[in-house]
Amino acid sequence: MDFVKEFSTFLFENKIIQFGDFTLASGKKSSYYVDLRLVPSYPHDFRRMVKHLQNEITNDVGLDNFDSLVSVPTGGLVIASALAIETVKPLIYVRSKPKEYGTSKSVEGKVQEGMKVVMVDDVATTGGSVLNGIKSLKESNINIEDAYVIVNRMEGADEALKEQGVTLHSLLNVLEITKALHEQNLIGDEILQKVQQQTAIE
Amino acid sequence: MDFVKEFSTFLFENKIIQFGDFTLASGKKSSYYVDLRLVPSYPHDFRRMVKHLQNEITNDVGLDNFDSLVSVPTGGLVIASALAIETVKPLIYVRSKPKEYGTSKSVEGKVQEGMKVVMVDDVATTGGSVLNGIKSLKESNINIEDAYVIVNRMEGADEALKEQGVTLHSLLNVLEITKALHEQNLIGDEILQKVQQQTAIE
Repeated sequence: MDFVKEFSTFLFENKIIQFGDFTLASGKKSSYYVDLRLVPSYPHDFRRMVKHLQNEITNDVGLDNFDSLVSVPTGGLVIASALAIETVKPLIYVRSKPKEYGTSKSVEGKVQEGMKVVMVDDVATTGGSVLNGIKSLKESNINIEDAYVIVNRMEGADEALKEQGVTLHSLLNVLEITKALHEQNLIGDEILQKVQQQTAIE
Repeated sequence: MDFVKEFSTFLFENKIIQFGDFTLASGKKSSYYVDLRLVPSYPHDFRRMVKHLQNEITNDVGLDNFDSLVSVPTGGLVIASALAIETVKPLIYVRSKPKEYGTSKSVEGKVQEGMKVVMVDDVATTGGSVLNGIKSLKESNINIEDAYVIVNRMEGADEALKEQGVTLHSLLNVLEITKALHEQNLIGDEILQKVQQQTAIE
């Protein structure tokens, strides 16, 4: 619980999460914007986030129970790479599009059929980029049961991954962040309500 | 010297460097192909590489003498991120193209005018991607005097960066790698000669 409150406050104070009227890449409107690419600019907070992620994976999956971390560039890669060197685990990554030159492939790194991987990405909304990654992995006969994101925006990613047999874990979801900020009077009732409506939690 | 020999052998044995007839992204022919994206699949070697890079930057520049690491996605980002968490230094990165949605910008992370950065990338050939990054940094009034790559392919990057007032450092250059492999009889005379011709060292 401490992590949620502290990290939410850090995100808000450094404008890594902002509330207002935003248009996302998909064209969809959003009452907030979150850009985790700023986190590595704050090395102590970045480190705290990565260590917390390490603890979660250790507790849920176990570091010895999978072969490699896998990431989705570029937001996820910066987190996964830091986690990989901390845990001394191999890291592979899936490209959103296979590169068009050189040794063209959609999965970068040493791959073996039947290997088991844990995916790391920065943010999940509907789960699109993670799902593309899962598809590429399955085409290479790589097993994936668990995916981790730092922030779950709660707009369908859990359900979409579940259909693929993958559990989505998150360090924080946007409703937890918003509630933690609201409790500290850092944001008002109206913002909390807008985020609640957007995540459409029953 | 030990690092050069050991790491060159690691690269060769795991086909991270391959000799033959290759066509690069630029359309140029090459007598070898090197793909450092495979290195994080070997966590102990990845760690050794990152620690060696840390030592070099510590000795040449000093960890307290710059404000932030800066990387060029995606090959450089995986190395820079691991280095950032090990050294507890901030990390920003430059996009090769600014993204077209959200808060559009070419430099990702917390940026201050006049800040001093050290660049990290995986491979330098003519220096194109590093030069693009340097250009973006200068447009944001960020100072850069030193850039580090793991492998210098020695095809003009040193000179191109020098013109921009930036010193290119490398853990290895392709001629050192090829000579180290040749001395161990892992490759023949013909390959060594081809690489020597390609790098056009006087």
